[in-house]
Amino acid sequence: MYKLYSMQRSGNSYKVRLALALLNAPYCAIEVDILRGESRTPEFLAKNPSGQVPLLEVEDGRYLAESNAILWYVAGGTPLAPDTRVERAEALQWMFFEQHALEPNIGAAYFWLSLVRGGRDLQTHALEDWMERGYAALQVMENHLKTHQYFAADQLTVADIALYGYTHVAERCDFDLATFPAIRAWLHRVERTPGFVSMDWRPADVEDPASIAAEA
Amino acid sequence: MYKLYSMQRSGNSYKVRLALALLNAPYCAIEVDILRGESRTPEFLAKNPSGQVPLLEVEDGRYLAESNAILWYVAGGTPLAPDTRVERAEALQWMFFEQHALEPNIGAAYFWLSLVRGGRDLQTHALEDWMERGYAALQVMENHLKTHQYFAADQLTVADIALYGYTHVAERCDFDLATFPAIRAWLHRVERTPGFVSMDWRPADVEDPASIAAEA
Repeated sequence: MYKLYSMQRSGNSYKVRLALALLNAPYCAIEVDILRGESRTPEFLAKNPSGQVPLLEVEDGRYLAESNAILWYVAGGTPLAPDTRVERAEALQWMFFEQHALEPNIGAAYFWLSLVRGGRDLQTHALEDWMERGYAALQVMENHLKTHQYFAADQLTVADIALYGYTHVAERCDFDLATFPAIRAWLHRVERTPGFVSMDWRPADVEDPASIAAEA
Repeated sequence: MYKLYSMQRSGNSYKVRLALALLNAPYCAIEVDILRGESRTPEFLAKNPSGQVPLLEVEDGRYLAESNAILWYVAGGTPLAPDTRVERAEALQWMFFEQHALEPNIGAAYFWLSLVRGGRDLQTHALEDWMERGYAALQVMENHLKTHQYFAADQLTVADIALYGYTHVAERCDFDLATFPAIRAWLHRVERTPGFVSMDWRPADVEDPASIAAEA
């Protein structure tokens, strides 16, 4: 059985839990609250020197980091992974896009504006860039979804799960999806998939938000 | 034969050319000078709506974007791809790390400080963040390389090629690798691989650098 170290309110962690739920794969979940420093303990850093969640134990003492690499691993050989070489590469294309165009902007905005109470005042200097680049990423997704039901292989794959993680919280951190009808339809399509589970997005009470790295 | 749209001086484009050279794979290279707007023409945008290089034509009229997805595609079934499921996931772990921790910082610094004449003055506000986060990424790599020759599967894989792309130009954009001996040894190890080719890093003369998006 998989052992997954994750945080309920982290979008990157949620991606993995969503994939495992859709696959109906049993796993042991260990909650790591990065907002309370639990990913910075010597015990956790021994497992993942970068101090980030999610983290999957794939064998005794062997750990895999990076949410999208974990998605790729757990989806191998399942219906969530495309069948052909070119479709697998197209799924990865969107997963790399997610990590450099979507997550650093909408993910960062979600973390500071929605998750951390008082976070908005600490990040006013960065917000304009996040909004501009986040909207640019959403437009690329919208253009694709105008003519496709899913991102790769004409079916729900790990690419959709990766992109769903932060797109579905965009409206909780100042983004407005009113002019992105294809994205909204796709969000609902993902949510109607059998086995779908939702994310826990309760805001956190953090005593010292300035001490938190934007790693969720 | 592959048809590759790329720019000689782009690190993301270079990764793909390096992989194809190491594989001794013939390909047709089409130079796209993004500094002169050639990735923003209607003809190019019809191939890749995001207007970025590299771009690989995998079949007539079917294109693959994102440097690391292209690497994964061309390396499939070759010695540059790990054999086992867990090692493939570990290679992807480092490739996702490259796209969110290394490329947005060292790649951006390289583009503006080294490639675009006059670019430094336009990016003074961002440079401090790029340096701090770029050094943090280098430290993660150094820690891994203290006990490993390569990033995954104990052999040269696409993970090394992805990370080599911008690490090897770090010292051309204000980073100092003096305190990263394991990284310097690894750079030389990659460069001694049979078939290795180097990148073209001549600075560009750009009439209007402010008009350029940091997409190289």
